[in-house]
Amino acid sequence: MSSLPVEPPSVTSPGAPPATLAAVRAGVPEHGRPPKYFQVKQKIDAVLDELGQGTPLPTEREFAERFGVSRMTVRQAIRELRLEGRVRRSGRSTVAAGPKMVQPLILASYTEGVRRQGRNPGRELVVFERIAADEALAAGLQVAVGAPVFHLERVLLADDERVGLESTYLSAERFPALAAEFDPRTSLYAYLHAAGVVFADADERIETVLASPREVQLVGTTPALPMLLLNRVTRDRDGRPVECVRSLYRGDRFSFTAHLTVEEPPGSRS
Amino acid sequence: MSSLPVEPPSVTSPGAPPATLAAVRAGVPEHGRPPKYFQVKQKIDAVLDELGQGTPLPTEREFAERFGVSRMTVRQAIRELRLEGRVRRSGRSTVAAGPKMVQPLILASYTEGVRRQGRNPGRELVVFERIAADEALAAGLQVAVGAPVFHLERVLLADDERVGLESTYLSAERFPALAAEFDPRTSLYAYLHAAGVVFADADERIETVLASPREVQLVGTTPALPMLLLNRVTRDRDGRPVECVRSLYRGDRFSFTAHLTVEEPPGSRS
Repeated sequence: MSSLPVEPPSVTSPGAPPATLAAVRAGVPEHGRPPKYFQVKQKIDAVLDELGQGTPLPTEREFAERFGVSRMTVRQAIRELRLEGRVRRSGRSTVAAGPKMVQPLILASYTEGVRRQGRNPGRELVVFERIAADEALAAGLQVAVGAPVFHLERVLLADDERVGLESTYLSAERFPALAAEFDPRTSLYAYLHAAGVVFADADERIETVLASPREVQLVGTTPALPMLLLNRVTRDRDGRPVECVRSLYRGDRFSFTAHLTVEEPPGSRS
Repeated sequence: MSSLPVEPPSVTSPGAPPATLAAVRAGVPEHGRPPKYFQVKQKIDAVLDELGQGTPLPTEREFAERFGVSRMTVRQAIRELRLEGRVRRSGRSTVAAGPKMVQPLILASYTEGVRRQGRNPGRELVVFERIAADEALAAGLQVAVGAPVFHLERVLLADDERVGLESTYLSAERFPALAAEFDPRTSLYAYLHAAGVVFADADERIETVLASPREVQLVGTTPALPMLLLNRVTRDRDGRPVECVRSLYRGDRFSFTAHLTVEEPPGSRS
């Protein structure tokens, strides 16, 4: 392979090692060897590639001896692998985790997204209450501040594993019979559909947050685990907001996919 | 407000306090008081609502005295607030951070997304190299394993702030003149457009990962900060893959939005 005719400071050799080993340039200093725990993490990561899903890992002590490091160093490496979903606790041992679930970012329910992956979705009720709209809810649902709003909070399950937490808010003036008619163990979207609501579009915002102690309790996860937070406003065909939804997914268990298409003339991109 | 006629174990009183204070039910034990650091975090969070963006926080010592806790407890609270982007370091002090940037999940470039938010986008070259396709790249770009691939790695800037890191991979057989013709400080999409490529669609996967030591160096962030990782394959109008892109955004500085529309008959949802 020939060398690249671009400015010298920007170029690594052709056929250079992959990005993780490539030199760090452009004003960022070479950082030499990565910290010891990170080297151990990469070595354990390679071990995980060989282990089947659900297989217990060697003990901390075995890893410490094999890599010639302290058990504390092994523990830090395994902690990061757990936060990232590469390993998980199973009873008293740590085992190789399966791949993250892949949830499509589409205007469908959690239930359907999980079914598409061949897993069995479930929801466990935490709270079903009537509250007064604060400013944010009033703006989202287009109701008056103080107007009655139903709040439905459910733990999201996949094959009986707790994977997330979802709060749905609906106007109690628009759906006055919800509390009397809706069984919170069933699908809310099915109820709304039967009530004549036709969903048309939604705006969704996705970010990463840390699990709060209450969320740790409810979802059964590690404190300060990175979570994926999705905030959605769903509208019907008249453009009226139907629901505001705050969904929190375990960052070690979920990823999201979107199919993007051209929205504008290609020339307008840069 | 009247009480809700649903099953007793599922119901909190009407007019109950917001979700964060609501009782935890459905098999999840009441967890009593949240840990001290979390209470302090919530109190500091309330203080932040009063402070303007960029305003220095009171010192750890002042917070410790005000809340009657140790400085260690204050430090843990502030650490989480920093990971979540509520506060940031500025020189030697910690200041209230602005809101996260909101990047649309559309088939457009980073450059355009940042401009839409009224910020000044930039890219700083880290690596421009020619590598051999491994199995994953070969599958993504639909080339043979071992085929030559250009790898372009750039730090993403917004108003001179380092906010992410992007690796783009293109077939060197398809774009043989890239190294000779493309100036990596300019827009790749503009170059590809001029080369006759018309983008049609893309599949994007979004998840949360922890920053590696190298990424910490390049993006100038805290070790183990939760990042948002986006993997994209962009295709042209013939359905051929044009590029594979791995973008890593600071989780404390970015959120993403998607506009969702109905893709299927509403009756098929559940």
